[in-house]
Amino acid sequence: MPEGVALARDLVGPAMEAAIARLTPAVHAVAAYHFGFADAAGNPIRSGSGKALRPALALLSARAAGAPPDRGVTAAVAVELVHNWSLLHDDIMDNDTERRHRPTAWTVFGVGPAILAGDALLALAQDLLLEDDTLKGAWASRCLSAAVLRLIDGQGEDLAFEKRDDVTLAECLDMAGNKTAALMACACSIGAVHLGAPPTLAMALAGFGAHVGLAFQLTDDLLGIWGAPEVTGKPVRADLRARKKSLPVVAALNSGQPEAAELGALLTSPEALTEGDLVRAANLIVAAGGKDWAEAEADAQLAKANESLASIDLASDVRAELTAIAEFITARTW
Amino acid sequence: MPEGVALARDLVGPAMEAAIARLTPAVHAVAAYHFGFADAAGNPIRSGSGKALRPALALLSARAAGAPPDRGVTAAVAVELVHNWSLLHDDIMDNDTERRHRPTAWTVFGVGPAILAGDALLALAQDLLLEDDTLKGAWASRCLSAAVLRLIDGQGEDLAFEKRDDVTLAECLDMAGNKTAALMACACSIGAVHLGAPPTLAMALAGFGAHVGLAFQLTDDLLGIWGAPEVTGKPVRADLRARKKSLPVVAALNSGQPEAAELGALLTSPEALTEGDLVRAANLIVAAGGKDWAEAEADAQLAKANESLASIDLASDVRAELTAIAEFITARTW
Repeated sequence: MPEGVALARDLVGPAMEAAIARLTPAVHAVAAYHFGFADAAGNPIRSGSGKALRPALALLSARAAGAPPDRGVTAAVAVELVHNWSLLHDDIMDNDTERRHRPTAWTVFGVGPAILAGDALLALAQDLLLEDDTLKGAWASRCLSAAVLRLIDGQGEDLAFEKRDDVTLAECLDMAGNKTAALMACACSIGAVHLGAPPTLAMALAGFGAHVGLAFQLTDDLLGIWGAPEVTGKPVRADLRARKKSLPVVAALNSGQPEAAELGALLTSPEALTEGDLVRAANLIVAAGGKDWAEAEADAQLAKANESLASIDLASDVRAELTAIAEFITARTW
Repeated sequence: MPEGVALARDLVGPAMEAAIARLTPAVHAVAAYHFGFADAAGNPIRSGSGKALRPALALLSARAAGAPPDRGVTAAVAVELVHNWSLLHDDIMDNDTERRHRPTAWTVFGVGPAILAGDALLALAQDLLLEDDTLKGAWASRCLSAAVLRLIDGQGEDLAFEKRDDVTLAECLDMAGNKTAALMACACSIGAVHLGAPPTLAMALAGFGAHVGLAFQLTDDLLGIWGAPEVTGKPVRADLRARKKSLPVVAALNSGQPEAAELGALLTSPEALTEGDLVRAANLIVAAGGKDWAEAEADAQLAKANESLASIDLASDVRAELTAIAEFITARTW
């Protein structure tokens, strides 16, 4: 694990707990459970609250602007609150029953309380940033609200794609740009924006984050098909079983290769997919070039991310840590 | 209908449509349906989009700061977006299947898309205010985020109260202050805040809105028991049938009068309530003083609202219109 991630857990974790402590008890209980600060009965526990990648990036973003990492804590908390708003609500929308090896909040507290807790995290994120009643607070807040709107667009596109059989690769990349990359771009720039850094710095950091975000999504999609269960925490080929139109799948379907038709027929078949079907589908994606394309595209995005960083002056340790996190979250460990 | 409300519909309606037009098609479809701009298939219609009370108050708030009403449009749109975020999500939480004489959005599009559309309205409200990248935009945005957090607290308290039989009148009033009055206070002050009006003016307008909001909730609760179906759009005694712990009910239960015990037993009885039970419950509330208390408290809140207005210099037409809206929304027409 990159060192910036461990620092983020130490610095941002307590600030996260303090932030959600502002919520009324019934709402706080759901949020504290979701973050792994408490069990379903409200007893304090220490469960994994996720990887703290976005907080780590936000702290580095403040350091990129020449400030010590603690000046990025509010921005880091805001980004992590927004990320968890999206998880709480997406788990309901996607009918997901498990997250971070625990039952999802809506399965424990009900759909209504989980909706409300998600709303609370989103509202709290904005309120925390606006508490700094200077223009810098407003800039950070706008940086976040723009990312939130793109994330919602991406989730809306994702829901709409599920009902379509003709999704293009361009549409799919655009969706990933909204759903995943926009918040990553925000995480990489909001610390600097909140400190009033020059636009060239903030833009380059956002560009870095956007490309890393796409590389991350491509990697996540590859792992969803070929990742080992020990690495992904999910059964092998889980995304194929769920018939998810992930990027390698859509690349294969749109490849013009002979395997595309059989793959399309398999994934839209009304019958349950057998293990044999899943292996066959994965092989068809490879044969149609979907896996190669996704690997090459992930590498290309990572290269663009590093080009974006190369365009700005940065302390060498900050540059190294940003690069280390980018490599960490795009590692293809099968 | 007060003249400020008609003006708000003309000025704010088109701005609302333009605001939600920014959303991606799948999300826009749900929002446009919810607002009555489109039917479920996306065809344009003109259905009632609600009473536009909060937008009317926001425009008056801008006028109170000496500006023409169109300077309050962004603030009015933001408040109305937030109000409708809460309606979209509350309808899911409360399992409500009808709103404004149409099926609720979640029953038409599904829970997931309705959650996402609500999220979009909340995020859009903040983004619109922050688009004005001056400190005034940030003040208006904070005014809204603080109200949103109180609204969430109120909804959380409301959900928690449903599981308790010992809710006090003070808790219930506090909940109404959060769930209803906070956004009304925001509506009455945000136009002025957005124009950089002096704090004394903004505070007095917010105080007016908070008291009107409580008077409105008390009135709504009275109408939920004694209102005529033609006025409320709901069956008579609908709130009793739903065993809602509304303010007159909680006042009666906590009255110390001999009728309280029978009323409590009726409302917690495991059996379905007959029409006779509902009539009996309404009579018990009257006998225990719950109706008188709610009427007196609504009148007292309205008087406090007017005192708050009396403390500031206002153009006479603005004062008259604020008072007219306050009276309109607290009229007890049985």
